[in-house]
Amino acid sequence: MEILERAITEKGKVLSGGVLKVGAFLNNQIDVNLISAMGKDIYEKFKDCGVTKILTVEASGIAIAVITAQFFNCNAVFAKKNKTANLDGEFFSAKCFSFTHKDENTLIVPKEYLDKNDTVLIVDDFLAHGAAANALIDIVKQSGASLAGVAIAIEKGFQGGGDELREKGVNLYSLVVIDSMENGRVVFRK
Amino acid sequence: MEILERAITEKGKVLSGGVLKVGAFLNNQIDVNLISAMGKDIYEKFKDCGVTKILTVEASGIAIAVITAQFFNCNAVFAKKNKTANLDGEFFSAKCFSFTHKDENTLIVPKEYLDKNDTVLIVDDFLAHGAAANALIDIVKQSGASLAGVAIAIEKGFQGGGDELREKGVNLYSLVVIDSMENGRVVFRK
Repeated sequence: MEILERAITEKGKVLSGGVLKVGAFLNNQIDVNLISAMGKDIYEKFKDCGVTKILTVEASGIAIAVITAQFFNCNAVFAKKNKTANLDGEFFSAKCFSFTHKDENTLIVPKEYLDKNDTVLIVDDFLAHGAAANALIDIVKQSGASLAGVAIAIEKGFQGGGDELREKGVNLYSLVVIDSMENGRVVFRK
Repeated sequence: MEILERAITEKGKVLSGGVLKVGAFLNNQIDVNLISAMGKDIYEKFKDCGVTKILTVEASGIAIAVITAQFFNCNAVFAKKNKTANLDGEFFSAKCFSFTHKDENTLIVPKEYLDKNDTVLIVDDFLAHGAAANALIDIVKQSGASLAGVAIAIEKGFQGGGDELREKGVNLYSLVVIDSMENGRVVFRK
């Protein structure tokens, strides 16, 4: 997606440890026009899949998930990290290791928000090693819902999570795929 | 706001400790049509204030902030809680005690996302004791930006934070104000 590649090139920052900072437009600060164009693009890809719910994980996935849900005219659900004081009752859960933050979270979704009648599209800002996407797929399976696919703003192709999902047969759509970020230079997959 | 009052009455849950759970439509699961109507209402209230940026705090404020920002055609910025591994450089910060989670966070916003040329509208899902709103107001002051006001989905009027802000002269707009939640029954301010 050309406008997203341009935003990454112009406003993204490559940090050490394979981290790409896109706080200027995708998370932390959110360029709603750009995110809206991304949501529309995701909608065009999955509009015939019968999507009834968008699923993401807090916090940085929420903006793109909510705007994508507007196009599908369906609810968005976000998984929370760990158990918080105001989550009562039962929930689906899956472990998720964050390579960026070097810690393990448990992603949780109350059971009342996903069920076997749902067709779920997972949406997130980044796909790197695939930990969050795999945890969300696990949660969809637990709920008995169908998985329409996974839509990602930025796939870090060189970290392998995307190719693993494709090998498993997941319908993965990444708006941009980055093949390398060596020496601070972002190279996009053609 | 009548449709929000109805959603709270029909789908909200009153938990112990003065907690109102609205995960079914406002956070955790997000009803995009409802949030969109709320964003439009906030826009009508503040459309002549020259708003250039919407400011909220992760995670539950992001959905309403982003959708409100669509109406203003401006960027949304969210404060993060604590310092995370991929936040480099300088930032504005303010302490914020969460009465729900019984812990203190430091809210941080990178300095590059707010400056003296901005006119900021703070948007959040809840206002109770006012800790988050006051921390965000402090961050706006540090940046030198102007404060257009504070727009809140649900003000828990009986916890006093809203009236304190009004006494300070803050332009506070709450879509609904709850006067009491005794015995599990939500009473709205007329």
